[in-house]
Amino acid sequence: MNHEESIQELYKLQGRLSAYEHAVSLMYYDGVTTAPKGTASNRAHSTGILTEEMYRISTSSETMELLEALDQEYRDREVTDDPEETKIRRMIYLMLKDIRDMQKIPMEEFVAYQELLVKSEDVWHTAKETSDFALFAPYLEEIFRTVRKFAGYCAPDKNVYDYWLNEYEPGISMAVCDEFFRTLKSRLVPLIREIQERPQVDDSFLHGYFPVEQQDQLSRYLMDLIRLDRDHCGLSTTEHPFTTSLGSHLDERITTNYKTDYFAASMYSVIHEGGHALYDTGSDEAFAYTVLDGGVSMGIHESQSRFYENIIGRSRGFTSHILPKIRELFPESMSNVTEEQFYKAINLAQPSLIRTEADEVTYCLHVMIRYELEKLLLAGDLSVKDLPSEWNRKYKEYLGIEVPDDRHGVLQDSHWSGGLIGYFPSYALGNAYGAQFLKKMKETVDVDRCVQNGDLAPVNEWNRTHIWQYGSLYTPAQILERALKEPFDPAIYMDYLEKKYREIYGI
Amino acid sequence: MNHEESIQELYKLQGRLSAYEHAVSLMYYDGVTTAPKGTASNRAHSTGILTEEMYRISTSSETMELLEALDQEYRDREVTDDPEETKIRRMIYLMLKDIRDMQKIPMEEFVAYQELLVKSEDVWHTAKETSDFALFAPYLEEIFRTVRKFAGYCAPDKNVYDYWLNEYEPGISMAVCDEFFRTLKSRLVPLIREIQERPQVDDSFLHGYFPVEQQDQLSRYLMDLIRLDRDHCGLSTTEHPFTTSLGSHLDERITTNYKTDYFAASMYSVIHEGGHALYDTGSDEAFAYTVLDGGVSMGIHESQSRFYENIIGRSRGFTSHILPKIRELFPESMSNVTEEQFYKAINLAQPSLIRTEADEVTYCLHVMIRYELEKLLLAGDLSVKDLPSEWNRKYKEYLGIEVPDDRHGVLQDSHWSGGLIGYFPSYALGNAYGAQFLKKMKETVDVDRCVQNGDLAPVNEWNRTHIWQYGSLYTPAQILERALKEPFDPAIYMDYLEKKYREIYGI
Repeated sequence: MNHEESIQELYKLQGRLSAYEHAVSLMYYDGVTTAPKGTASNRAHSTGILTEEMYRISTSSETMELLEALDQEYRDREVTDDPEETKIRRMIYLMLKDIRDMQKIPMEEFVAYQELLVKSEDVWHTAKETSDFALFAPYLEEIFRTVRKFAGYCAPDKNVYDYWLNEYEPGISMAVCDEFFRTLKSRLVPLIREIQERPQVDDSFLHGYFPVEQQDQLSRYLMDLIRLDRDHCGLSTTEHPFTTSLGSHLDERITTNYKTDYFAASMYSVIHEGGHALYDTGSDEAFAYTVLDGGVSMGIHESQSRFYENIIGRSRGFTSHILPKIRELFPESMSNVTEEQFYKAINLAQPSLIRTEADEVTYCLHVMIRYELEKLLLAGDLSVKDLPSEWNRKYKEYLGIEVPDDRHGVLQDSHWSGGLIGYFPSYALGNAYGAQFLKKMKETVDVDRCVQNGDLAPVNEWNRTHIWQYGSLYTPAQILERALKEPFDPAIYMDYLEKKYREIYGI
Repeated sequence: MNHEESIQELYKLQGRLSAYEHAVSLMYYDGVTTAPKGTASNRAHSTGILTEEMYRISTSSETMELLEALDQEYRDREVTDDPEETKIRRMIYLMLKDIRDMQKIPMEEFVAYQELLVKSEDVWHTAKETSDFALFAPYLEEIFRTVRKFAGYCAPDKNVYDYWLNEYEPGISMAVCDEFFRTLKSRLVPLIREIQERPQVDDSFLHGYFPVEQQDQLSRYLMDLIRLDRDHCGLSTTEHPFTTSLGSHLDERITTNYKTDYFAASMYSVIHEGGHALYDTGSDEAFAYTVLDGGVSMGIHESQSRFYENIIGRSRGFTSHILPKIRELFPESMSNVTEEQFYKAINLAQPSLIRTEADEVTYCLHVMIRYELEKLLLAGDLSVKDLPSEWNRKYKEYLGIEVPDDRHGVLQDSHWSGGLIGYFPSYALGNAYGAQFLKKMKETVDVDRCVQNGDLAPVNEWNRTHIWQYGSLYTPAQILERALKEPFDPAIYMDYLEKKYREIYGI
């Protein structure tokens, strides 16, 4: 095969794998949005087979020969800044890394794990509904056992948790996270204390009766406002909101969950997932059906979702801009609410049970709890059966609240049931990245005015130029370096939070 | 490979192919129920690749060697009535038939056709919405061209339409259909004339305002009433109602389309698709993930869907049984309607535009028109561009009505856009099979009383015993022979129709 032919084969291989990913993602999406209750094992059957096929294609001798020959070819060459070469080098790197990891895991175990995840997701749904941790525990045990085993196969010399943290946010380790959370904690805890000493904000009008149909209209209004292309991004409902690409960034799906007594939960989940979707769908069009398509890491991903959710979505400008629409949709509860009242209510800071509904100040403590629990579980210092009581103990310790049941505690998030161990710290990192992006963005964009006017085009354009378009072409560190032109500094995030909340609470 | 191993491989191969079918069917289902508008070409990309993979697996030398060796082994043996042997023989026959046909079609053409169908389905939706036949015509031309070409590859000595008729209903040909439609026409035309001479039935109360939410409740009530297992059968909305299995009969989906001005359209589509789903989900559990899973032919399939829709669903007993529920859901329009008025309105017989909403008497004429048009198109005696005018001419001739636009004419059905040429006659055959099943069923089941009491268990049990459980194990002719113990006779269907409608119209 000559060079041209090899490159063609490289693209063809990625296209082929993307079709399998499309199928497997769609089965997952169908399972949690539409499928009838009794169909999980049927889906596990098909998912297992298709995953096995992907595994076979990825690790076949043809694939390995192709990738290794190309890898050698590029190693023998000098690196140029030809964009096509940069792309090809990165594709080869990403594919080889994945496949070499995959090859270290015996196929039967890999496939069995995929099937386990499909069933576990299903059991978690029931367990959450009935607040029955015991039902879910055997699955979670098996997931932690497998995750530990797989890390051992792939990186026998590395700490298990370090391995998994690096999978979700390349470049990150426990040492980095420990330091990062220490910085956050040292400034968050006093801030939370100061806030709690101030008179409480009234958010009673956010709680009432908000029909699903109007909430659905609000979702679509918000998707348009943040300029999501609804021809390429769908919205469905599910237990735990998430975002997925199907086949390529040309078909993106976000999901939400409507609570008729509190519209802000769904509202901010739509903006959050919308941020993920903006990032994915903003990939260079030419990246479709390649490994460069879509976001590079969970940290950068969360920097975008949390940026739209909080930095934009909970800003004074944004809440003022959308209030007329909210008054129109929910006149009974909202028609007499002022911009100031709405802004403050949306930013009410107080320790609470549910991470996805937490305010910006306490949010990172929710993440820290999960980080510490994952650390203990993977080190073998905590068993799954003791997880709920340890969860509840930490919520009492860090947030000062009692967890009434596992539905509002350890069963609240879907991540663990989907095998996402090591993912949570990305949320906190994303928050911090986002605040630093904002600071940089403000050098050239009048963010406050744009948001106040409901014109997010310049904001999106900055993100597209510096982040979205690159998909997975650059590492998280490269993205940060190129966009910020200065080192990552979590203090910027703390400055942002302190400024915002001191103003709100008159501290 | 010894015999045991070969049989194991045979099952494994079928399981593997069922996972691909799951993926491709789910992408189709997603496309017409949930997917955002601009995603068809993304789906076509993945569907094309997965179809190509299926094609490769099916026609690989390993597959052929396995099947041909088993085929030879069973040819060399005497046929016994061992149930396992019967299953294996049938699996080998069905797989070899499909694969040999497939092998005659060049892979690129096969894959290109699958991709064409995904796009064509999408264009048809838009074309129907805007009543723009010209938009759809190039796709339909390409479909007819391909269908003609493929028949030529697979059965060069056979008439093209005979080939395709036989694909949907094995054993059927133009000669059979011509004779069948002649019988129907000779008794339908005078019956329709007699009905038209009688005073018209009042069905004005069926037209009004019926909110989607209540119609959705009615759908779920009906699914329960016909005893569909909702843990394994989902309901979604789409432009053109259909039924599909995903991976196996353990995950079945039906769809409907709510019209807020006429609830009977969706109501009967749910019962119709529900009949298909009962048939599929009634397969022997052990058939899951094999080619024996699900119904054997479109004729037998429609015999079940049309049986539940009409013979059960439009019977006096059924309409009386459901009327209280309908009054409860739609009190404004329905609270003063009597059982007799409801029964008659539901069975109002008059020439109309839309096949799926046609009464039992005129229905077969809708099918006959499509049969005659397909015959002309495939013979090259009609061009696609002249199809709408010929459609309209035939509606005038056979049903005496003017077609106002293509949306209510040639664009109404999705079949052609999905490549289903030769499918339509199955509806008429299914009607006739169903009436003969009823006659036989009545020998042992008090159908009228069961239906009146809303207890469909004995009716379902008869169908399960004689039809459903066999999936694709027997040919349509064998199913009919085993269930009826007498030859198929369309006169029985005409007797049923004449008796029912003479009573309703007092002829």
